[in-house]
Amino acid sequence: MTDPPERSFTCLARHLDGSVEELPKERIDEIDKLTDRDGTLVWVSATAPTSEDIAAIGREFRLHPLALEDLHKQQQRPKLDTYERQHMVVAYEAVPAAPDGLSEIHMFIGAGWLLSVTWTATPLLDAVRDGFAARRNGGPDTTGTLLYALLDAAVDSYFPVLDTISERIDALEDRVLEGEADRESLAEILYLKRRLLELRRVLAPMRDVANALLRRDLEIVDASSAPYYQDLYDHLVRVLDQVDIYRDLLAAVLDARLTVASNSLNAIMKRLTAFTVVLMVPTLIAGIYGMNFDLMPELRWPFGYPLALAVMAAAVVVSVTYFRRKGWF
Amino acid sequence: MTDPPERSFTCLARHLDGSVEELPKERIDEIDKLTDRDGTLVWVSATAPTSEDIAAIGREFRLHPLALEDLHKQQQRPKLDTYERQHMVVAYEAVPAAPDGLSEIHMFIGAGWLLSVTWTATPLLDAVRDGFAARRNGGPDTTGTLLYALLDAAVDSYFPVLDTISERIDALEDRVLEGEADRESLAEILYLKRRLLELRRVLAPMRDVANALLRRDLEIVDASSAPYYQDLYDHLVRVLDQVDIYRDLLAAVLDARLTVASNSLNAIMKRLTAFTVVLMVPTLIAGIYGMNFDLMPELRWPFGYPLALAVMAAAVVVSVTYFRRKGWF
Amino acid sequence: MTDPPERSFTCLARHLDGSVEELPKERIDEIDKLTDRDGTLVWVSATAPTSEDIAAIGREFRLHPLALEDLHKQQQRPKLDTYERQHMVVAYEAVPAAPDGLSEIHMFIGAGWLLSVTWTATPLLDAVRDGFAARRNGGPDTTGTLLYALLDAAVDSYFPVLDTISERIDALEDRVLEGEADRESLAEILYLKRRLLELRRVLAPMRDVANALLRRDLEIVDASSAPYYQDLYDHLVRVLDQVDIYRDLLAAVLDARLTVASNSLNAIMKRLTAFTVVLMVPTLIAGIYGMNFDLMPELRWPFGYPLALAVMAAAVVVSVTYFRRKGWF
Amino acid sequence: MTDPPERSFTCLARHLDGSVEELPKERIDEIDKLTDRDGTLVWVSATAPTSEDIAAIGREFRLHPLALEDLHKQQQRPKLDTYERQHMVVAYEAVPAAPDGLSEIHMFIGAGWLLSVTWTATPLLDAVRDGFAARRNGGPDTTGTLLYALLDAAVDSYFPVLDTISERIDALEDRVLEGEADRESLAEILYLKRRLLELRRVLAPMRDVANALLRRDLEIVDASSAPYYQDLYDHLVRVLDQVDIYRDLLAAVLDARLTVASNSLNAIMKRLTAFTVVLMVPTLIAGIYGMNFDLMPELRWPFGYPLALAVMAAAVVVSVTYFRRKGWF
Amino acid sequence: MTDPPERSFTCLARHLDGSVEELPKERIDEIDKLTDRDGTLVWVSATAPTSEDIAAIGREFRLHPLALEDLHKQQQRPKLDTYERQHMVVAYEAVPAAPDGLSEIHMFIGAGWLLSVTWTATPLLDAVRDGFAARRNGGPDTTGTLLYALLDAAVDSYFPVLDTISERIDALEDRVLEGEADRESLAEILYLKRRLLELRRVLAPMRDVANALLRRDLEIVDASSAPYYQDLYDHLVRVLDQVDIYRDLLAAVLDARLTVASNSLNAIMKRLTAFTVVLMVPTLIAGIYGMNFDLMPELRWPFGYPLALAVMAAAVVVSVTYFRRKGWF
Repeated sequence: MTDPPERSFTCLARHLDGSVEELPKERIDEIDKLTDRDGTLVWVSATAPTSEDIAAIGREFRLHPLALEDLHKQQQRPKLDTYERQHMVVAYEAVPAAPDGLSEIHMFIGAGWLLSVTWTATPLLDAVRDGFAARRNGGPDTTGTLLYALLDAAVDSYFPVLDTISERIDALEDRVLEGEADRESLAEILYLKRRLLELRRVLAPMRDVANALLRRDLEIVDASSAPYYQDLYDHLVRVLDQVDIYRDLLAAVLDARLTVASNSLNAIMKRLTAFTVVLMVPTLIAGIYGMNFDLMPELRWPFGYPLALAVMAAAVVVSVTYFRRKGWF
Repeated sequence: MTDPPERSFTCLARHLDGSVEELPKERIDEIDKLTDRDGTLVWVSATAPTSEDIAAIGREFRLHPLALEDLHKQQQRPKLDTYERQHMVVAYEAVPAAPDGLSEIHMFIGAGWLLSVTWTATPLLDAVRDGFAARRNGGPDTTGTLLYALLDAAVDSYFPVLDTISERIDALEDRVLEGEADRESLAEILYLKRRLLELRRVLAPMRDVANALLRRDLEIVDASSAPYYQDLYDHLVRVLDQVDIYRDLLAAVLDARLTVASNSLNAIMKRLTAFTVVLMVPTLIAGIYGMNFDLMPELRWPFGYPLALAVMAAAVVVSVTYFRRKGWF
Repeated sequence: MTDPPERSFTCLARHLDGSVEELPKERIDEIDKLTDRDGTLVWVSATAPTSEDIAAIGREFRLHPLALEDLHKQQQRPKLDTYERQHMVVAYEAVPAAPDGLSEIHMFIGAGWLLSVTWTATPLLDAVRDGFAARRNGGPDTTGTLLYALLDAAVDSYFPVLDTISERIDALEDRVLEGEADRESLAEILYLKRRLLELRRVLAPMRDVANALLRRDLEIVDASSAPYYQDLYDHLVRVLDQVDIYRDLLAAVLDARLTVASNSLNAIMKRLTAFTVVLMVPTLIAGIYGMNFDLMPELRWPFGYPLALAVMAAAVVVSVTYFRRKGWF
Repeated sequence: MTDPPERSFTCLARHLDGSVEELPKERIDEIDKLTDRDGTLVWVSATAPTSEDIAAIGREFRLHPLALEDLHKQQQRPKLDTYERQHMVVAYEAVPAAPDGLSEIHMFIGAGWLLSVTWTATPLLDAVRDGFAARRNGGPDTTGTLLYALLDAAVDSYFPVLDTISERIDALEDRVLEGEADRESLAEILYLKRRLLELRRVLAPMRDVANALLRRDLEIVDASSAPYYQDLYDHLVRVLDQVDIYRDLLAAVLDARLTVASNSLNAIMKRLTAFTVVLMVPTLIAGIYGMNFDLMPELRWPFGYPLALAVMAAAVVVSVTYFRRKGWF
Repeated sequence: MTDPPERSFTCLARHLDGSVEELPKERIDEIDKLTDRDGTLVWVSATAPTSEDIAAIGREFRLHPLALEDLHKQQQRPKLDTYERQHMVVAYEAVPAAPDGLSEIHMFIGAGWLLSVTWTATPLLDAVRDGFAARRNGGPDTTGTLLYALLDAAVDSYFPVLDTISERIDALEDRVLEGEADRESLAEILYLKRRLLELRRVLAPMRDVANALLRRDLEIVDASSAPYYQDLYDHLVRVLDQVDIYRDLLAAVLDARLTVASNSLNAIMKRLTAFTVVLMVPTLIAGIYGMNFDLMPELRWPFGYPLALAVMAAAVVVSVTYFRRKGWF
């Protein structure tokens, strides 16, 4: 969040005849003329607006004071709020470049117009804008289909994120099973856990928003667009399913990591025990022949010394063999 | 997924008089003539269709754009989608040979016809096809009974999979209780955990689909086929119950494994302690008689050396006996 | 399941005047004459029927194909299925002698008759049969009260099972708190966990069946028998509460076991440390006086040797006292 | 439960004019005359009734056979059962002196009368009886307010119990954080866990009973007493909240205990390592100067011995300082 | 809670013309005159009232006996109680200075008046009071908006508390990942766990209160204030989401801490093993040349001693290098 986000403002209107008109920011106060025209669909998209921009937009679209406050404060929970003449939808897009990987979008829907506000330039807007401007027919043609296009692009942005997380969990699992219980893997587990919790935090209420759009009798979702919103809802449920599976897998990896650590401790202790025994037995033998008794016949034997060494070597060989057989070495 | 799946296309029509007609793929555009005939049940089954096949099928059956998109993308969540004139059911069959053990099936149901699309050749289709083609009477005779036959075969495919998992958990439990806390058992636990999570991911929404078919007033499930769909639902609930029990058992096995590892560590440490004491006591005695004091009467005793050895041996015997009694050896 | 279960077949009819008539198996095809008589209650009870028996029964009572399939396959989930003219209830009785401790019962209820099928001879049937046959008045007098009598006996069979489990958990807890973290206690924990999961698997749907009998408007449960079914439901909820409490206690015992093992490891390590220090200090002293320096005045002292021994003894006494004070011995 | 509970029987009737009449046990068969009088509230309270008492009471109040069975068997789940002309409420009071800390109360409510049966003499009954008998006006004046007075006293009895548990958990937490991972604290954790599970087992259904009294249209809870039952419900929810919080805290304490044990193991092992190194280095030096080479110049040095001792001392000081800096001592 | 809280009492009335009148405590009995005036909004705010104050307030506002009891006892669960002519809302504000970080507020709402009682002087009241008194227009102008203002201020007080908790968890995670498994971090984990449980205990029922205000048809929440209450509800859900995420993160940190401790134990044991081997090998060599055999040629070699030292040094270097390569040092 070091660089200030690029500010932008676009106002597009598509008339009934399919012609697309673009209004510069200066003529923002003429928007109501456009929205009053029958069959004209107006889309205003603002990125990183200043406080003054927000105030101007609020006046022009007669936004509710609470909606304005949300625009100022940001960090809202995904939600669908219904004011007298308007609806507000708050959603989040996955943007890997953003500091917490998420980009907030506020959308306001009124009769014939949709206003979307974001704080980072996201590919989502460009994609939808291309569809809106280029295709005379086939592009979104009601506020309902435009809202769907935006939400659909937002939801689709989570799939690559989940794929990355899935790969990182697979890599973690492999590393842990290979016994690499290093500190990095623990930091990675905690990082992924945090990521999944954050994804869950925005995706669960987004699913509820999709469901509310489907279930409540709102004029923006009509019979022909209902299957699209159902599809949106299905996708969100699928994404949430994945998030929950990854959480479970992550928990299993953490458990496995603890088990691997405990296994490896057992292996180390077996080795310590084996080393201790292997080295202490010849030390004891050396100690015995270091005693100063007057009468120790072995000390006088001509081959006493090599024999003692041989006995020590034999003790080492026997104990090493024993422990190797038990798998302690 | 190395071999390309075998492509196939079958169009069967059973007329009111029980006669079964098969249409080659080339005459796919004559399907609407068949479906228009009163009392004729048409079943089109496509395996591993190309993009062009999907487009052709889509045109012929007037599939909804979202349904077509799902056919192209695959990897859908099991669901029941209702479009204007059609229903779409997505389900999964357990196919041990498939890379993730699951095979996706998309089924479209319209007035008098059912279209099923799969991406691997599954025994399910053959079984249902035999029933459809061979038995003049008694085979599925409405889209509702045909859909049931397909879903029932899909659900039945999970029982052997669960039996295998159950046996593997039993084997795991035995191995863990015998103290074999090896790395393979941990990999096996993680593998089974993943399998169960994947099964849960497809089975829970399939149960919801079965429930939706029962509860919602759809024309495809009439009074006489309701008990069959109830049975389907019961089977799915049973399978899910088992999946949950296996998850709980697996978690218990993982816990047991940690406990076994900690027990075995205790045993190792007891042995290390016992070894250390058993070997250090005679070493100390040898050290004492290795001291160079002028006046050490024992050193002059004729039986000093054998006596010292006897004391060492006694110390070893006493300590070994002591630790064996405590069960540390 | 080594011995084949004893096959049996009983058909009892109680007429309005209280007289009880028994029909031999051969005259099974006369059952419909009995059920047609006004006010006559017919109870047919079959144990371990062969496939042919099932087919014959199915024909006589006009059972639904799915119900017949369930009879053939067994291992159903407890459920209440409603077919056109009949209801089917599947329940489980706790039978300690059975391989998995459970015995399946299928009950079919029609107008004036009840058919119960089991696969093991259970005390339940005898108890209910005595009530049915002996008491002219007071025994079950409608299909509803007969069904209740069977289900009530089935539910009551779980109480002694739970008492046994409770005692075993208490014994486990005592053993674990006494520090006996042996392998048997772990196997016992896993066994009880499995038992409780299996009990939960049959008891939870049985509770749902009892609830469905109460809530749905079925003709078999009338106003006067409703309190009895409410009682049945209460008992099932109580049994399930106990199962859940035992699961929680078992989890706590497993946690406690791990903690006890970790405590005992600490005690062992403390002892190892203490032993090592206690034995190494005199060994070091012996080593010092085993050095061969020309000028070591102590070696020449007349009481050098006993003094050295005294110092060693003092070191042992001091370190033993020190560690005993710290509680490491 | 060694002493037989004191048997008692009280029958109080308050007439419309506020006068209170007490009926001796012998005249139990005149109760119906009292209950028939308009505006008279009759409260019969029996403690530890014999089987004959229960039979007599059952006859007098025309109790349902199932209610009678519950009175004989006891150990019921808290519940609200509705029979034709009566309601039965089963609840539990916290009685620290009772073996499992709980005392069962069965209450039967009919038109103008309430019968309460307990098996231990509880302060609850005395408190409510004082209110009933003493105050002409202001005491409970309908069966609904009398039932509330009894249930309210029962619920209030849990607060001191929870306070005690809270203090014991605080004490446990302090002990565990101070590193006292003794066996008593583990037994205490298991004991508290069991206590909380038992409290949950009776409190959760009592909350459901309170809710059922509020929600269902029962004549015993009228508009003016509804806030009181709402208050009862709120208190039960609060008590259950506390129970759940204590369970969570207890689980955290158990986890903390394991962590403390593992910390303390680390400390012990560090000390063992330090001791081993500190003592082995001078032992090695002593061993070197104990070698019997002909040519070891140091052995001839006049200050060889004190120098060797000095080197040993230096090694000890250096290693002790090193390990102390690392915090291993 | 050492200092007695500052007692205060304020009665403000804003008339239809926007004029604000303040009534001293002595004239508390004139409140009903104010509330009777059309369009006058009366707000009475009492802090730390004595028992007599509560009794006086109760008389003046005709509070329900249960509401009075709650005022006396305090420590209520957040709730919305509806009495005949009044509503009572109990909520909690986060006040870092309070002993348990929470300050209780009871609010009573009648026709045209709102009474709020607190037991600590909170900034909340001052903020709302300023808005009430200063702004002639724009301040809360119905009991519904006044209640919202109070609740909104209460909810906003949790955000800084959660931010602090979030920072402390982050700090904990960093410390744990750096391997600092000290006792303080464990105490911190337990403290935060307790804090989060306490927050959950008041926030979950506050969310239910907000929901009840929205859903139930209460006259205090009209169409124009509904979006505000919806906003309140959204904020509470967001706060609860955060609390749950922090609980999950805390659990992960505790798990990580155990894993770090187990890692560090492995490191210590590796070092102990390495130290033991590194020091025992030269000790054994020294022991060998300390033996007293007559014929040990090496002892006679002129360079025997330096050679022995060299061999010891080599053994140390080799073993140190070996263990360093394995990462055990």
